[in-house]
Amino acid sequence: MYPDSLKNLIESFKFFPGIGEKTAERMSFSALELEKDQIDFFAKNIKEVKEKIHPCKICNTLTDQEQCFVCKDQERDQKTLCVVEDSRIVFLFEKMGTFKGKYHVISGLISPLDGINPEDIGLEKLLKRIQEEKFEEVILALKPSIEGETTALYIKRILEETGIEITRLASGLPMGADMEYIDPLTLERALFDRKKVE
Amino acid sequence: MYPDSLKNLIESFKFFPGIGEKTAERMSFSALELEKDQIDFFAKNIKEVKEKIHPCKICNTLTDQEQCFVCKDQERDQKTLCVVEDSRIVFLFEKMGTFKGKYHVISGLISPLDGINPEDIGLEKLLKRIQEEKFEEVILALKPSIEGETTALYIKRILEETGIEITRLASGLPMGADMEYIDPLTLERALFDRKKVE
Repeated sequence: MYPDSLKNLIESFKFFPGIGEKTAERMSFSALELEKDQIDFFAKNIKEVKEKIHPCKICNTLTDQEQCFVCKDQERDQKTLCVVEDSRIVFLFEKMGTFKGKYHVISGLISPLDGINPEDIGLEKLLKRIQEEKFEEVILALKPSIEGETTALYIKRILEETGIEITRLASGLPMGADMEYIDPLTLERALFDRKKVE
Repeated sequence: MYPDSLKNLIESFKFFPGIGEKTAERMSFSALELEKDQIDFFAKNIKEVKEKIHPCKICNTLTDQEQCFVCKDQERDQKTLCVVEDSRIVFLFEKMGTFKGKYHVISGLISPLDGINPEDIGLEKLLKRIQEEKFEEVILALKPSIEGETTALYIKRILEETGIEITRLASGLPMGADMEYIDPLTLERALFDRKKVE
């Protein structure tokens, strides 16, 4: 039914997670509306990304250099390390802009049910780095979920001997949330961690 | 902040309508997870689509040939012409599979407020085709909206002299719809066009 090249493009879009038949069709038809320049730019970029982008050798943040822009920056606070589960979170923090320390990206979260054990998420590299550099605080910026908390507790345990301060992000009500849509777990945590109004 | 090639890929995804910053970021990160083969296939296809796909010279359905698969098919019912506002609708009909007639794709709908007048949507080609081929019925499969109805009425008027039968798709409740979510206009149309239970 579809011409071959259109059918192939639809199939290509479906490689992306979360893109089903409908969206792949919509995007493929949209591609027909783009200028040739835009298509060429797009095709070039998607190939380049695959060729050039890799994890920073120090912190695993995605980069096209040997060291990422944070590790190279000598102005950053060398005493605070923020541990995240994915490079995306580094970029999220950088968009926020208020954190001035360093990052370390581990490979996901411990999840025995999914067969992801502590040895699978690159904690050795994290431990080695913490032993070598002079951090005073490690902030665990992990997903507020069973897997996130398991991973946080595990990291806390392996860092216990170092005596370093270990913190985690606050949990509670997201800013601007409508109270009636807050789920019970979040509400429970917000209540438990309630703070004095000063 | 983002490495250049990643930043460029994010910008490229934003060329697509409906793709904002967040989705472009998510898809660009996903691209990093794809195999090189998949990326190459994708990049090749998006270029090919732009080079090879164009409107059928008879009916305007997108094709990579001179004539589309429907116009070439001599087995199709030559007496019924279905007029649609976009090639996508042709493929939608073909997925349904029960329509065996021919198609004609016009270039959108009349919408004076958006500056789209009758002379802008390719009605001359439609009229010429209807005068040359021997259709007995023209089905207007246009969007059930003010623009769709305006366009349908306009087409009806210019075809009046031909004496050809002109029909439109039924409006009413979509199958499987929850009654409480039906909008008042649809309900009104469904009531107005109600049919005897037999």
